[in-house]
Amino acid sequence: MDSRRAESFSDGVFAVAITVLIFNLLPIGQRVLNAHVLAMAWPQYAAYVVSFLTIGIMWTNHHTLFGHIRFIDRPLLVLNLLLLMGIVAIPFPTALIAEHLTGPDRSGGQIAAAVYGAVMVAISIFYNLIWWYLIGHAEELGSASSQQMLRGSVPRLGTGPVLSKIPRWSIGMVGYAAGTLIAFVSAGASLAVYGLLALFYLFNHLPNPPRDAPAPDA
Amino acid sequence: MDSRRAESFSDGVFAVAITVLIFNLLPIGQRVLNAHVLAMAWPQYAAYVVSFLTIGIMWTNHHTLFGHIRFIDRPLLVLNLLLLMGIVAIPFPTALIAEHLTGPDRSGGQIAAAVYGAVMVAISIFYNLIWWYLIGHAEELGSASSQQMLRGSVPRLGTGPVLSKIPRWSIGMVGYAAGTLIAFVSAGASLAVYGLLALFYLFNHLPNPPRDAPAPDA
Amino acid sequence: MDSRRAESFSDGVFAVAITVLIFNLLPIGQRVLNAHVLAMAWPQYAAYVVSFLTIGIMWTNHHTLFGHIRFIDRPLLVLNLLLLMGIVAIPFPTALIAEHLTGPDRSGGQIAAAVYGAVMVAISIFYNLIWWYLIGHAEELGSASSQQMLRGSVPRLGTGPVLSKIPRWSIGMVGYAAGTLIAFVSAGASLAVYGLLALFYLFNHLPNPPRDAPAPDA
Amino acid sequence: MDSRRAESFSDGVFAVAITVLIFNLLPIGQRVLNAHVLAMAWPQYAAYVVSFLTIGIMWTNHHTLFGHIRFIDRPLLVLNLLLLMGIVAIPFPTALIAEHLTGPDRSGGQIAAAVYGAVMVAISIFYNLIWWYLIGHAEELGSASSQQMLRGSVPRLGTGPVLSKIPRWSIGMVGYAAGTLIAFVSAGASLAVYGLLALFYLFNHLPNPPRDAPAPDA
Repeated sequence: MDSRRAESFSDGVFAVAITVLIFNLLPIGQRVLNAHVLAMAWPQYAAYVVSFLTIGIMWTNHHTLFGHIRFIDRPLLVLNLLLLMGIVAIPFPTALIAEHLTGPDRSGGQIAAAVYGAVMVAISIFYNLIWWYLIGHAEELGSASSQQMLRGSVPRLGTGPVLSKIPRWSIGMVGYAAGTLIAFVSAGASLAVYGLLALFYLFNHLPNPPRDAPAPDA
Repeated sequence: MDSRRAESFSDGVFAVAITVLIFNLLPIGQRVLNAHVLAMAWPQYAAYVVSFLTIGIMWTNHHTLFGHIRFIDRPLLVLNLLLLMGIVAIPFPTALIAEHLTGPDRSGGQIAAAVYGAVMVAISIFYNLIWWYLIGHAEELGSASSQQMLRGSVPRLGTGPVLSKIPRWSIGMVGYAAGTLIAFVSAGASLAVYGLLALFYLFNHLPNPPRDAPAPDA
Repeated sequence: MDSRRAESFSDGVFAVAITVLIFNLLPIGQRVLNAHVLAMAWPQYAAYVVSFLTIGIMWTNHHTLFGHIRFIDRPLLVLNLLLLMGIVAIPFPTALIAEHLTGPDRSGGQIAAAVYGAVMVAISIFYNLIWWYLIGHAEELGSASSQQMLRGSVPRLGTGPVLSKIPRWSIGMVGYAAGTLIAFVSAGASLAVYGLLALFYLFNHLPNPPRDAPAPDA
Repeated sequence: MDSRRAESFSDGVFAVAITVLIFNLLPIGQRVLNAHVLAMAWPQYAAYVVSFLTIGIMWTNHHTLFGHIRFIDRPLLVLNLLLLMGIVAIPFPTALIAEHLTGPDRSGGQIAAAVYGAVMVAISIFYNLIWWYLIGHAEELGSASSQQMLRGSVPRLGTGPVLSKIPRWSIGMVGYAAGTLIAFVSAGASLAVYGLLALFYLFNHLPNPPRDAPAPDA
């Protein structure tokens, strides 16, 4: 199957999932509305902003990844579906955090932040599986770059003997796993970690596909 | 009408319907949130995963089917609309199952699982009607393969005199009908059948369209 | 502006609006679920089916209309926006009908059916305005057919001196206006009229654009 | 990255956000439905119409802006994401206005109207940032017009030494800021300002991209 069809379906799913986030805000002030009610809802706004940026950046990375290939086979289609299952789930832990971060029950906020992190770790794993599958089947999937070129073009953590082996993007998976553990100490600190990771991913950590160059048929 | 326009509209409908599934999860923990509340909601997660994979796979099959043709006429447009009416309905029995699978009232879960199966049987029927219409009008619809080639390329159940006549995909319709009946014995067993059918459909059981080959104008 | 961009945005709006219809069904059986509860919700299913077919057919007609042109100017863009405002509103009277058709308060169902018809009349008016604008500016909008050809190709009501002047599709506006009035006598009869109009529109009553012919660049 | 991919994702987000507006109307008449209940909900309809036109026009402007360029880089992608975050937020203040404009608590309506204006001011700022970034990087982004041509083609407020320096579209940002302040005097007057601004933006105040000319590859 042409990978662009799968991309345009994925685009639709990303677009709906990112818009679903606003539903968490709609009930604010359904009874009374004053400055205090508005201000007290700040976890709703914070969760909206963090999750919006996160899904938006994940959409960008999705395009960068799939920009390397021209075809999609059945295993990749299934991996992509599992990834989308994680993306679409994001509004759920977002709602949990928004509801419980400042609630009377401290452990509610902690559980919410941990679920958020767990969903993100799952998404990170699927991104990694997709990348590994993609470089392992570069030729069949119609990649312009060879397996070696793709593997070599991944930005690394550093220049040492160890750091030069670790892709820079794996900070994400480690960061989300750390955020999940931190949640059991402080939900607020955990949410701050997720915000920082969203800011980190505003920068690109993936090799750019050649399609990024002027492509008259794109 | 060019069939690709109908496909891109259908893509949009599939993308929204698959994302609507998350709305069933949003009310979890709206009052209290603890490990027990989260764990008790497992039918919500199970129903989400099964329906997400099911809609995702149905989207793939939709593309494989429509990949065989280039034009769409009025009867096919109406059949496609009826199919989409079934797809969009999936979040409804999904919500019923999620709500009633572990509820105090045993018959509630059974009815929910039966409604789920009935919707799936209806969708299977529309898929079959679309396939029959498509091979019956292969030339008018701009198919690259002739009616005989299309009919011949369908993977069959087996090699015997009977099995070689039955398309492998018809396991779906039979399976969903069985699941609907099993529902009246055990809702859980019924849901397991639906999950297995989703796994079965992760593999392709449709003839691949020639468009799957490199198509510079796709 | 290229009219295809406006079409693809409109496609997205149609796809979301048609999927929003399922939200009316989600609360069914939120407390208890048995055969009686399911059966009592039949106005929900009827309203879902009628509105789904109606929006689906309207999407088809939208494509047929815009298939005649290649460019879109500001007035047409605004007319299209007003049309979409009507399409997106359809789930609202659909919910009113579903809720009140069999309610204890007879006048509630009548008002619901009248609101439904009024929204449909408004949509019909915008379709007519778009068609008139389109044939009045056929050349500027890049139509392949001249104003006279477009006007001449509209299927008419009949062959008499009067009937041959009235486009067949205007049955819609008249039918919806009649349904709105009938609502004040019987909400059920009114809904039946809307269902019949949806069936009537399953057939095409618009001139086919030349783009329906094989277009390699579409 | 090719700017058209970002545009089609943005189209999806606009299409979902504009359709989400209908959710504010769905609860009307959930208990009783009569002419009085319908009439009393007029702030819901007014807010729906104003926000629908506003998002629709913003979609048009988004296309006009991005029609000038062919590529999108990371900073522009992030600016676009922030803009979409504002667009998707519009249903929230729309719900606040619909709920509180005619409520018993006068200050509730005022706060709602002020939040609406604040969101619009934020959106205006992002539109301005995108425009400034776009003309500052015209060549890298593949614009057909040079930086000077783009800057020169912006319609101005007037012909005097001062007015000729101010782009006509900046009426929007000033108008929304004024509406935000007026909200604290009268929520109704503020909503009227927002309605007038939506009407003002029905006309084009941006330079048309050359892509508006017949483009066979668009």
